Order: sequence, then structure tokens, then C-alpha cells
Amino acid sequence: MSDNADYVNEVRYQRGQAKIAEFSKGPSVTDSVMNTLNKVAPHMARQAMEFVLGDVLSRPGLDPRTRELLNVAVLTAIGAELELKLHANVALNIGCTREQIVEAVSQQAVYVGFPTAINGIKVLEQVFDARDAQGVSN
Amino acid sequence: MSDNADYVNEVRYQRGQAKIAEFSKGPSVTDSVMNTLNKVAPHMARQAMEFVLGDVLSRPGLDPRTRELLNVAVLTAIGAELELKLHANVALNIGCTREQIVEAVSQQAVYVGFPTAINGIKVLEQVFDARDAQGVSN
Amino acid sequence: MSDNADYVNEVRYQRGQAKIAEFSKGPSVTDSVMNTLNKVAPHMARQAMEFVLGDVLSRPGLDPRTRELLNVAVLTAIGAELELKLHANVALNIGCTREQIVEAVSQQAVYVGFPTAINGIKVLEQVFDARDAQGVSN
Amino acid sequence: MSDNADYVNEVRYQRGQAKIAEFSKGPSVTDSVMNTLNKVAPHMARQAMEFVLGDVLSRPGLDPRTRELLNVAVLTAIGAELELKLHANVALNIGCTREQIVEAVSQQAVYVGFPTAINGIKVLEQVFDARDAQGVSN
Amino acid sequence: MSDNADYVNEVRYQRGQAKIAEFSKGPSVTDSVMNTLNKVAPHMARQAMEFVLGDVLSRPGLDPRTRELLNVAVLTAIGAELELKLHANVALNIGCTREQIVEAVSQQAVYVGFPTAINGIKVLEQVFDARDAQGVSN
Amino acid sequence: MSDNADYVNEVRYQRGQAKIAEFSKGPSVTDSVMNTLNKVAPHMARQAMEFVLGDVLSRPGLDPRTRELLNVAVLTAIGAELELKLHANVALNIGCTREQIVEAVSQQAVYVGFPTAINGIKVLEQVFDARDAQGVSN
Repeated sequence: MSDNADYVNEVRYQRGQAKIAEFSKGPSVTDSVMNTLNKVAPHMARQAMEFVLGDVLSRPGLDPRTRELLNVAVLTAIGAELELKLHANVALNIGCTREQIVEAVSQQAVYVGFPTAINGIKVLEQVFDARDAQGVSN
Repeated sequence: MSDNADYVNEVRYQRGQAKIAEFSKGPSVTDSVMNTLNKVAPHMARQAMEFVLGDVLSRPGLDPRTRELLNVAVLTAIGAELELKLHANVALNIGCTREQIVEAVSQQAVYVGFPTAINGIKVLEQVFDARDAQGVSN
Repeated sequence: MSDNADYVNEVRYQRGQAKIAEFSKGPSVTDSVMNTLNKVAPHMARQAMEFVLGDVLSRPGLDPRTRELLNVAVLTAIGAELELKLHANVALNIGCTREQIVEAVSQQAVYVGFPTAINGIKVLEQVFDARDAQGVSN
Repeated sequence: MSDNADYVNEVRYQRGQAKIAEFSKGPSVTDSVMNTLNKVAPHMARQAMEFVLGDVLSRPGLDPRTRELLNVAVLTAIGAELELKLHANVALNIGCTREQIVEAVSQQAVYVGFPTAINGIKVLEQVFDARDAQGVSN
Repeated sequence: MSDNADYVNEVRYQRGQAKIAEFSKGPSVTDSVMNTLNKVAPHMARQAMEFVLGDVLSRPGLDPRTRELLNVAVLTAIGAELELKLHANVALNIGCTREQIVEAVSQQAVYVGFPTAINGIKVLEQVFDARDAQGVSN
Repeated sequence: MSDNADYVNEVRYQRGQAKIAEFSKGPSVTDSVMNTLNKVAPHMARQAMEFVLGDVLSRPGLDPRTRELLNVAVLTAIGAELELKLHANVALNIGCTREQIVEAVSQQAVYVGFPTAINGIKVLEQVFDARDAQGVSN
């Protein structure tokens, strides 16, 4: 790939890092995922930073809080507990309320069934307890 | 079940019908689902009206447009094409923009993969084409 | 594989065929699946006959009607519409009632959500309509 | 909601509690789920009691043992391990045999594949071991 | 985004187009997906070209035929019939045999169950029939 | 079942055992799964040995390394972490490289989304760390 290409990936990478910084205004978002990717599959770490954060989650057309509520709902629906924990924290960090997040999860009982929605609530319990222990305001 | 119980189910049923009316301000929402349920499993038709519409989708805590964007995202993620078509229309009927809906669907490429997200976009194409053919404003 | 091996597979194959015959006491069960397998992947046709029908569905420990209700419930849950249609017919052919089958499907609204359960009910509508058109008693 | 409405929800709630009592004739069914829901999303605790237990699982049309075998099969199929553990205990508490439950799980190798069915068997191993340790008869 | 950024995306876009050309050596791969994306969600069309084709499927580390067999297997497993049809054609176009593709699909009966694997075989039947009708050699 | 039948199942069983031996040339493949099956559902232990290993994974038409890469990809896609750990070890034991396995997993970000693919990478991290700790060459 040419130098120009590397430069531009850097642009996307930096946009991804800015997104990470925005997400981490409150309690720091776990970077254990990035550590694993950098160690085992570094190209995925770059894809996560450039494509997921730099391209998709940085897009216009939806306000960031709504994007994060969508993530909370979908991650509940697909049972991705690790990422749900991460994005529930992000959503709270950027100003969503706990009530909104509980609604985004509990509504999924209708769409993916009670067992999956209840698993999402159990993840929220851990997130809320951890934030309470840290003395975070929301 | 006592008369009182029947009366109260009627309360929840009417709240569900009010939700249906709210959802149908624009092009009418398909009632083919309700027809099938009333014919084959009438108790599910009541559950859909009372529990889904009267209880869950009528809850406070999230504005109705955000609730519908969540539904659009989750129905994309689980590949429920019939219900996605229905709720994409509901979302547009209650004031979401096409751009918001496209974002809610396309963002899922990150979370459930491109094939599933692309299927969602194909459903939106049908919804938008049908609304254009009907001369609906959004 | 030795002649003995072929002979024994024949035993399992015949037990599978006996199961098919039991399943087909009423309206004939579609063999379009078997035709496709025999044409494209004949080893899967043998696996379906020997392993699925000859081994698993012929096992003791559950009465055949309960086994078929389990199949109806699980095939609803995983959205396997073609196989749900087939096994709903099998269940009715071996003596399950329509009410039991509707319950087995509609109960899944709790466990996998309303969209998936409703899709199951739509399949049942087709099955019941086809059997009514054929003048089958249940 | 009117007093009448509250009264009727109480009727559904009590029917749900009766179902819980029926389910708990043997070793007590874990209430950790209810504790979490009451703490984080109390409306879901009520929905679980009124809708899931009071409405759906209290319906006529299928005997309770068959309903529970369906739950065991479907919860295996969707990989809901926590709820599978709960409903395997319920099934045994209301009179299903271990053999029936093993069949309901192992049959799913055909329908959702061996990895998922094997995970179900691993849950059963935990359930059976715990009941053996408690000296429960089945 | 700067001019440089646009240029580099063009590099990735062209690498994606080269991949498309490689995939289409035999019967042309359907572009109906790209048409829909360009019409409804043009940013997804660019993501598909740049990220999916230009980045991921152009990576070193696995030969292209093995990558396509993986796609055939995974698309079978997740029930993505439209994309399975597309990638089965791609796999044949770049030199995989029909036997390899049938094995990649039929093996999934073990891992995701017979209904899903059989659906994959039905897609292959359509692909093989269409190629036979077009007089393609494999 | 007749003596002949038992004999032939023994043939398939031994073919399954030969496959296990082939898979275990390097670090031994965990047999905790077989222990659980033999204890709780011994008929599934035989099915795993005869059908999965003796029939399907012993088929011609695909070289064993490609079969295992397919397993790694599909087990990632369906989130079967226990079996992914097992088959990633098998793949390495029979000569696949770590790079190939990382590609087989990371490519799935496109097809089933980043959360599921990242979970796969986390499993690989455990597998690689364990093999490093054991001093295995690949």
C-alpha cells in the first residue's frame, strides 16, 4: 500500500481514536478487546479502529446517543454480552440515562424472547453496580 | 376469568388499539398479521394487542421514535423481514426520516455482518418504493 | 466399506423408511427434500434416512407424538419454515391435535420473541388450509 | 391505570405465583432471575409473572409436562443455558423423567447441530449432579 | 475528508473492483445487491467494495479458493441464501469443484443441524441447475 | 439390533477413533466432552464417534485441513466456544498454520459481525497461549 494510503488510513485511525475518546468521557471503556486483537489479529484492531469507529460509528444521520441505544438493543438481541457491557458504558458516558438503557434492553423480550432479554438485564446489573461502586453519577 | 378481569384486558386492548392508530397515521400498517393470528391463534392476537402494543410499546422512558428505530435495528439483526417492513413503515409514519432508518439498518453490518444488514436494506428498498408509489411524503 | 457394513446400513435405512411410512399415514409428507438431496448430495439423503429417521427419531424414551411436538416447537424457534411445514403435517398425521400444535408454536413468543412465533403461526395457517382443502379430518 | 386494572393484574400475578408454586414442588427453582429483574427492571419482573407464567404457561391445550419438555428442547436450541437449567429442574419437579429430558435435549443434535445439543447435555449434567447431591428422587 | 483520503479510498475501491473481476471470470456474479445498495444506502456499497472486497477478501494468509469455501460454509450456517448463491458461484468461478462445495455445505449438518444444511443444498441445486443451463463447465 | 448391526457400528466407531487419533497427533484433544456424553447421554457419545467422526469428518472430497478450517470458521460464526477451542487445536495438530486459523476467524467479521468474530479471536488467544505454555511448535 502506498504512503498516501497509509496516511489516509491514519486519518481514519485518528477519527476512530477521537470516537474512543468521546466514548470514554466517563469511566474508561475497557481496552481488553483491543489488547487481544493487537496481540492475535492486529489487522482486526485496525479494522475496529478505522472501519467500526472511524467510518461507521462516526457517520452523520443519527445522533450518537441514539446510535448507542441501537447498539445496546442489538447487542442484547444477539447475546453479545462482552460488547453489551462495553456499549452500555459508552451510552451512559455520552449522556443516555439508565432508564433509557433499561427500556432498550427490556423491550427486546418482545422481539427475541424473555431469556435473551433477561440476560441483557443481568449485564446491565453488572454495569450499574460497577458504576455505583466507582461513584459515577449516572 | 372474572368480569373485572375481562374489563381490564379490554383496557389494555384499547391502549393497544390506540397505539395501532398512532402507528397508522400515514399509510396503513398491514393487518395481515392480525388476520392470521385471529384465524389460527386468537390468543396470540390478544397478546400482541395487549402485551406488545398495550404494555411494552406504550411504556414511558423512551420517545416513540427512538423505540421504533430500536425495532428497525433489532428486526434487521434477527432477519425478521415481515416485521421489519411493518416497523419501517411505522417509524416513517410517526416522523422518523428515511436517513435515520437507513442508518439504523446499515450500522448493523458491524454487529451482525454484511449479509444480514444487506437483507435489511433490501427490505427498506421495498418499503421506500411502495411509499413513493403511494405518494407519501417521507 | 465391507458388505457387512452395507447390509447394516440397509437395516438402518429400512428403519428410516418405516419411520417415513409411520409419518405418512395421513396426507403424504413432501419428498421434495429427499429428491433434492438424492440429486445434489446423495450421502445426505442416506444420512437423513439412516441417522435422522433410523437412529434419532426411532429412539425409545419419548412417545412419537411428544417427539413431533418438540420438533414443531424447535423448528419454529429456529425459523426453519420448510421443515416446520413438514413436521406439522407429520405431527397431525400421527395423532397430535391442531390445538396442541398451535400451543407448541405460540408458546415460543415467550422464548424466541413474537416475530419468530408469528412466522410459525403463518406456516401453520398454510398447513391447516392445505389439509382442509384435502378434506383431512385433523 | 385504574384500580380495576391493578386488581386484574393482581389476578394474573397470583396465577403466575401459583404456577411458580407448582413448578417448585421439588427442589426450589432459582429466584436469582426474579431478584435481578426486581432490582434493575421491575416491570419485567411483573411481565414474567403475569404474562409468561400467568398467561402463557398457564394456558390449556397442552399438559404441563409436555409444555416443560418443549421448553427444555427450545432452550437447548437457542443456547439459553441459565433458563435451561431452570426449566430442566421444573420439568423434573413436575414429574418428567430424566430419560425424557435427555431425549428432548439430545434429539436437537439433528435440528441445531451437535455443538449446541452437547452444550445442553452439559447443562443437564450440572442439573442432575446438583439434584443427586440434594438427594432428590428424580 | 481530504483529497488524499478520497484518493486512498479510490485505491481500496479499485482493489475491490479487481476482486470482483477475479470473482467473475466465469458466469457473471449478480450485481443486484450492488444496485440496491447504490440506490438506498450508497455508503454501504462503498463499504462492500472497499472494506469487504478491497480489505478483507484481498488479504494474504489464505488462498482465495479456501476463503471462498469458508464463505460457502459460513453462509450456509447463518442461512444467508442470497449471499450463499453468490459465493457458491464465485467459488466455482475461481476453480473450486462442485464436490468441494457440496462437502462444505453438507458437513454443516453436524454443526448447525440438518434443516439449515438442507437449505444450503437447495441453494446449490439452483446454482448448479443455472450453470448447467448456461453450459458452464463446472 | 442384530449382531451384524453391532459389528458394523463397531466399524464406524473404529473409523471415528482413527479420526480422533489423527486429530490428536499434537497436544491431546480434550475428551471432557466425551466424558460428559458417556455419563449423561451415552447414545450421543456413540453418535459423535460414529456419525460425526466416523461418517462426516471421514468423508472424501475435501482435504482434512480444509475441513478443519471450515469447522473453525463455522464454529466462530455460531459462537460455539468450547468446540471452537477443540477444533482450533485439531486444525493446528494436523498442520494448519496459526495465520490460516486467524484468517478463518477474523474474516467472519464481515459475515457475522465484529462481536462474534472478536469472541472467536479471544478463543484463539487462549488456544495459542496454552500451546505456547506447552511448548508446541505451531
